[in-house]
Amino acid sequence: MYVIACIYISLCERYERLVALNQRPSYFPRKLLQQNNDHHKDTSAAFRAYRAASFCRETTSDNTACTDQRANYTFGTKEALPEEDPSVIARLNRLQEHYQRSGMRRTCEGILLVHEHGHPEVLMLQIANAFFKLPGDYIYPEQTEIEGIVSRLNERFEPLGNTDPKEREWVIGECLAQWWRPNFETFMYPFLPPHITRPKECKKMYLVHLPQHKTLSIPKNFKLLAVPLYELYDNAARYGPQFAAIPHLLSRFNFEMVDEQGNVISRSVGAPQALDGSDLIPMVV
Amino acid sequence: MYVIACIYISLCERYERLVALNQRPSYFPRKLLQQNNDHHKDTSAAFRAYRAASFCRETTSDNTACTDQRANYTFGTKEALPEEDPSVIARLNRLQEHYQRSGMRRTCEGILLVHEHGHPEVLMLQIANAFFKLPGDYIYPEQTEIEGIVSRLNERFEPLGNTDPKEREWVIGECLAQWWRPNFETFMYPFLPPHITRPKECKKMYLVHLPQHKTLSIPKNFKLLAVPLYELYDNAARYGPQFAAIPHLLSRFNFEMVDEQGNVISRSVGAPQALDGSDLIPMVV
Repeated sequence: MYVIACIYISLCERYERLVALNQRPSYFPRKLLQQNNDHHKDTSAAFRAYRAASFCRETTSDNTACTDQRANYTFGTKEALPEEDPSVIARLNRLQEHYQRSGMRRTCEGILLVHEHGHPEVLMLQIANAFFKLPGDYIYPEQTEIEGIVSRLNERFEPLGNTDPKEREWVIGECLAQWWRPNFETFMYPFLPPHITRPKECKKMYLVHLPQHKTLSIPKNFKLLAVPLYELYDNAARYGPQFAAIPHLLSRFNFEMVDEQGNVISRSVGAPQALDGSDLIPMVV
Repeated sequence: MYVIACIYISLCERYERLVALNQRPSYFPRKLLQQNNDHHKDTSAAFRAYRAASFCRETTSDNTACTDQRANYTFGTKEALPEEDPSVIARLNRLQEHYQRSGMRRTCEGILLVHEHGHPEVLMLQIANAFFKLPGDYIYPEQTEIEGIVSRLNERFEPLGNTDPKEREWVIGECLAQWWRPNFETFMYPFLPPHITRPKECKKMYLVHLPQHKTLSIPKNFKLLAVPLYELYDNAARYGPQFAAIPHLLSRFNFEMVDEQGNVISRSVGAPQALDGSDLIPMVV
């Protein structure tokens, strides 16, 4: 009964917070971008792109100058990409074998951003209606991190039978976070815990800049979701501590939202210097 | 009774996590750097400095090259610095007046790092044995952010009657996070919530690089604490969501720990490329 009470309190608080945030009654406002059956290919979802500029203290008034990135994404499906391990225990056992053979495992994941109504959303893969994943995986010992994450992104998203080398290209941005696995256990931390000299895995999250146009083919056993930042924030219960921290990792960036025609439709600027009221607010159309 | 049950569960979980992390039984392993009475000036605390390098994807194997920062800090006390507002409500009312006069409030706070036993710690101020604060405060409309944070750091830490202009200098690093206050309420978010076009406050957290030597004079009504990252992590219940997120904000950095003599005594490197086992681990002496 205690447990039920706790969950109830937690749900109530969460519902209030969400409503306060977005004024929408929908409880899980994620958007399914791609359906998992061949009859229904949702290729109409043309999502708007974003432009992110790492916050630069020298230019506090307007730091959104960056390369023009616009999007009009096409989503399709391809053959299933089976999971390597049937269970968490099997995965940890394989990590142990890997460690004995090649040392600490290196994992790289990509944070791909789109937006809707001017609010950033993170592209995520869902397996079995339960687990959420960022695109990416562990990389091989002979690979650099950038080689590794590019090959993993293509494994996830490259259309079947693709012959266009441009479709295999990805612009990998900066590292946003490092997570450490101190033992052969599920816990990871955003720092190396004291007394740990032999971490078993280091996972890095990279910002991936989407190009103006891209076709993303999703393996049949995955769903592609666009999860808004306000849905991830403070929601470790549903998404786990790593994904719930993504809003924190992105908070230093200012975004410029671009529509399908390449027009900037909204912009978030951080604390401009001007006293003119019109400059003191982000432009949200 | 439900509430008590919740707290009990929460405490148990937390205790287990802490023990798992640091193998220490101490429940709140914060270190008090400065005592609040004139008879006991704890000036013996010579803390070790750190060197942080923003993670750079081009040089994954060793990215700790940076300016030499070493520390030997002296802590003293000075006259009390009274709070401007007697209560949270008074503070929010004053924010409202400020907004009507000067638009969105801009606040800047500094993240100052030291280390002990090779683990980074964040310098924090505590008021009335209850509230934790980072050094910093709102800045005036005519100030740039850097001017503002430097004057606030001096307000907090400059020794009384100081005549050395070097003691007034601070090296302000990059912006680590932006927090938005959508309404005249206590909630802040690490993103601008949808439909909010007139935020009331934007708070930025800046990394502040401590010099090799510095005298920090703490106002009598504050305590200076060094809080380890593992203590802040996942501890919004005690430190609030903003400070609990600091480990996430710092996770992309690699640290180099320097002792009082300037020797590098430990180093955390993120996922090096080498297959040699000795290079696959951080050097922790």
